[in-house]
Amino acid sequence: MNSSPTPARVLAFDVFGTAVDWHGSITREVQALRPSVDGAEFALAWRAGYRPAMARVMSGELGWTRIDELHRMVLDSILPQFGMDDLNDTERQHLNRAWHRLDPWPDVVAGLTRLKSRFTICTLSNGNIGLLTNMAKRAGLPWDCVLSAEVFRAYKPDPAAYLGVASVFDLPPEEVMLVAAHQDDLAAARGCGLQTAYIERPAEFGAARLKDVSPDPANTWHAKDFNALADQLGC
Amino acid sequence: MNSSPTPARVLAFDVFGTAVDWHGSITREVQALRPSVDGAEFALAWRAGYRPAMARVMSGELGWTRIDELHRMVLDSILPQFGMDDLNDTERQHLNRAWHRLDPWPDVVAGLTRLKSRFTICTLSNGNIGLLTNMAKRAGLPWDCVLSAEVFRAYKPDPAAYLGVASVFDLPPEEVMLVAAHQDDLAAARGCGLQTAYIERPAEFGAARLKDVSPDPANTWHAKDFNALADQLGC
Repeated sequence: MNSSPTPARVLAFDVFGTAVDWHGSITREVQALRPSVDGAEFALAWRAGYRPAMARVMSGELGWTRIDELHRMVLDSILPQFGMDDLNDTERQHLNRAWHRLDPWPDVVAGLTRLKSRFTICTLSNGNIGLLTNMAKRAGLPWDCVLSAEVFRAYKPDPAAYLGVASVFDLPPEEVMLVAAHQDDLAAARGCGLQTAYIERPAEFGAARLKDVSPDPANTWHAKDFNALADQLGC
Repeated sequence: MNSSPTPARVLAFDVFGTAVDWHGSITREVQALRPSVDGAEFALAWRAGYRPAMARVMSGELGWTRIDELHRMVLDSILPQFGMDDLNDTERQHLNRAWHRLDPWPDVVAGLTRLKSRFTICTLSNGNIGLLTNMAKRAGLPWDCVLSAEVFRAYKPDPAAYLGVASVFDLPPEEVMLVAAHQDDLAAARGCGLQTAYIERPAEFGAARLKDVSPDPANTWHAKDFNALADQLGC
């Protein structure tokens, strides 16, 4: 970890996996809907379609498309393999909205509330504004502002997303810090001059598939969770 | 007032004049900085340059420009007539940020908190995202989401701004309500199919220039302030 040369003013948070437990939440929704299906596998399959779908947008193959629509495209494509292609449109719409109903990790509301006392806290997610707002309202996430790929018309790791946050707040990039549980997201932010904080979320893909949460010394901070980050940042 | 055919899900609020007292706040800042200047006249002159500056953007004469920059252009143009062209760049930057430090009307924080219990509450302002976020953080405005002309790259009364809110939340326009103290803003929203609520702010331009706050029966609701609107909407 490097000592921070300039104090950050804005903390921009990745959301899926970093602030909310998409795997556990989707697993529970799918199993409640269809107990015979392996919800954990379903969640992984759904999420696995996410990056390829975004890549089709960023390559220009698809025009600008919100994550809600990309989630629906992926959902429609995986339902047959789980024997769920009998779901009608209303049921699919409701299930697709499960991404608006993701539960936060247990430390998140308390940690964000502490961090908010000293920093401007915003989202920087590829999720669309409506999704992020509905999620925040349900889960009590106290963002000062909901920023999204939708505002910048560019999905992370496009530099336009990271630099967009600095521009919105009229700050140099080094006064913005990306907080994320994904080293590739943080590396892209660092490449734009942002500070970075890695958050350990070993069970992001479920307790059966723990992920490597080793520190990367290139990050400005490394914390177990949002409360630990608040401790380190003196909140 | 019409009875509301469909319950609104999202309330989108105009900010300058409707939620915050720009005239009183700017007057106080200017008088604190330069007691010999008529702060109330200064505030009116600064605000008077706002629409013409936006019109230059919407006509294409200027490229997309944030309100912070438009405020600064207007500020630079009016300083000489108030004998304040001795202000240096740092002082001008600080004064320009007065628009980030506007005080809410006395009913606003309590009224929004009530309305938030039942509706998604967001801004729909021509102010830029950073300005609105800094203002909300300082004043304690509990928005679920900060929407702005900056998100839609269109200043009100461009239909793209009003319809943009409905699109962000994937709702038909009639499930969105614009709340504003300006009949022209409400009329434009109505033209896009939104519900409308007029809020009386008779002293928007100062106690010495009370404005007409007569009801227009075309609006869905007419309320004295945000608490009265919360009463009417059953919050």
